[in-house]
Amino acid sequence: MADTAAKREIHGVGTEESPQKVKRAKADNENGGGGVGNDPESENILSEFKTSSVLSDSAREKNIFIHGKLADREAVVILEKTPIREDSLDELFMGSKLSLEMRNDIYSTYRLQAPPQLNEIKATVVCPATEKHVKKYQRQESFLVEETGEDYQSITLPYIQKQSFSVQWVHNILEKKAEAEKIVYEDPEPEVGFVLLPDFKWDQKQVDDLYLIAIARQRDIRSLRDLTAEHLPLLQNIFQRGKEAILQRYKLPASKLRVYLHYQPSYYHLHVHFTKLGYEAPGCGVERAHLLADVIQNLQSDSRFYKSRTLYFPLRADDGLLGRFREAGRL
Amino acid sequence: MADTAAKREIHGVGTEESPQKVKRAKADNENGGGGVGNDPESENILSEFKTSSVLSDSAREKNIFIHGKLADREAVVILEKTPIREDSLDELFMGSKLSLEMRNDIYSTYRLQAPPQLNEIKATVVCPATEKHVKKYQRQESFLVEETGEDYQSITLPYIQKQSFSVQWVHNILEKKAEAEKIVYEDPEPEVGFVLLPDFKWDQKQVDDLYLIAIARQRDIRSLRDLTAEHLPLLQNIFQRGKEAILQRYKLPASKLRVYLHYQPSYYHLHVHFTKLGYEAPGCGVERAHLLADVIQNLQSDSRFYKSRTLYFPLRADDGLLGRFREAGRL
Repeated sequence: MADTAAKREIHGVGTEESPQKVKRAKADNENGGGGVGNDPESENILSEFKTSSVLSDSAREKNIFIHGKLADREAVVILEKTPIREDSLDELFMGSKLSLEMRNDIYSTYRLQAPPQLNEIKATVVCPATEKHVKKYQRQESFLVEETGEDYQSITLPYIQKQSFSVQWVHNILEKKAEAEKIVYEDPEPEVGFVLLPDFKWDQKQVDDLYLIAIARQRDIRSLRDLTAEHLPLLQNIFQRGKEAILQRYKLPASKLRVYLHYQPSYYHLHVHFTKLGYEAPGCGVERAHLLADVIQNLQSDSRFYKSRTLYFPLRADDGLLGRFREAGRL
Repeated sequence: MADTAAKREIHGVGTEESPQKVKRAKADNENGGGGVGNDPESENILSEFKTSSVLSDSAREKNIFIHGKLADREAVVILEKTPIREDSLDELFMGSKLSLEMRNDIYSTYRLQAPPQLNEIKATVVCPATEKHVKKYQRQESFLVEETGEDYQSITLPYIQKQSFSVQWVHNILEKKAEAEKIVYEDPEPEVGFVLLPDFKWDQKQVDDLYLIAIARQRDIRSLRDLTAEHLPLLQNIFQRGKEAILQRYKLPASKLRVYLHYQPSYYHLHVHFTKLGYEAPGCGVERAHLLADVIQNLQSDSRFYKSRTLYFPLRADDGLLGRFREAGRL
């Protein structure tokens, strides 16, 4: 799965995504000592940990990934605060120390110092860690790029053309040479037709994180930038029939769906994302997603909207396109 | 996007919350020094908190929203663990107690009990809380609503006017009757001026989850729907000076910022959100957020853009406005 996902993400456009949760790899065991087992107590081995760098962290999820050394061995330490447990609330309220920070009208905020046993942190240690581990947990920073219509012509389009990213796998789907069994709905019409199928990120086990992709049959539309009013029938068809197919198959009405395009897209063949409203799908942020309903309205009022409009999107530090914007003095 | 984070909004339906009332709250304060402002210390008022029910919680974000009583008054208490700070890591590793949970090959996990002062919990108290607050923090399904310009006039605007949501706390900030010490930047000019201060959700300990709000001085702009080209100087001023102030204070350039408005907003007084790119701030999804740069472009090309445009936004199942859309057969 990781393999195919990588294939589909042609280059690193996107938001900063936190590293995958600790996945245990196969035993390439040099460690020997531990084996599988439980100790009731242990000395604080982390007191000897020497931090080299913070690989990434998430203020939202309250975790941090740290590279450093344990004794003389490379190690990665992951700390993550634990969820607040309902059954410990009474004890927490009784046993904590409180400091007022701010009061305004009916609102006040405090810093609360809780008894340590009610407020644990989960620590995961990978030791010895290889370079692979370190890279895996390293965050890539993103930068917001401002792209005028001229920037697209002079910077982005030449870059895309030069890279000549392969979308063979998209053609395989359209021609049913691959993944034919996954197709949820298809409209064979060559101009306005499309194929709807589950995104790779969705395991299809529950609709809470529903994620489908509609791939246009037309092959010459790279992205939002190529759309004009002549594509309205295609866009409206994807919008309408995509929603109908999802209602029929998954019993989710249109009012539970977020339907959007990415700019920059992960691959330069027109596709539309259908995700469940309330599911914080990666890439559904306002800095990268464009509601299909808005795209349609924009093209209705101005056929050349996406030719002239200044668009904003994040690029990761290691993205070649970011380098081009830098060279052009546009960052 | 589940929008459960601690946030102020509409409150005190139909009540007049005058500055006098705020002063009274000050006199009521048994700690003496407080009222509107800061106390260095305070007794643990939460030890008397009686939990009625958990409104919602997030294992991912490590927060919990609790409804209960403080003395005899309805209250909502929000607890959220604080992000792990890089500058406290050494102390954390040295000063914590560690219990081994699991060891397998190069991987081991521990429970870590940290010194309380290195592992605080942020507590927000809303007291007295109205039924609206309780509802607001209750986990709820959302539905995407389609609002035409006419829907706004016939459904949304009358609803907003009838509710007469209080924004007294906003006026307190603008008049420096509250939170004056938190102001990061202010432009006193009455037409284009604004106040920039940290959002409630941000503990200001790290810039990773930077979240500031710019509140316009003009008091008669309810939302995106009220904006026309005449507000361009205001919007451009907020955009430009907000970015400059953040660069100066937090060393974050504009390319690391996501600057946007909400529609619907949480409270009907024009404000702009500044969050760090890469931080998945609640409410930054494409279904609710509107990039300020886009808003400016839209108004530049059509002064009446937000009068006529069909807008899409999520409403929670218990939102009165959703009921109005239902009654009008618009859902």
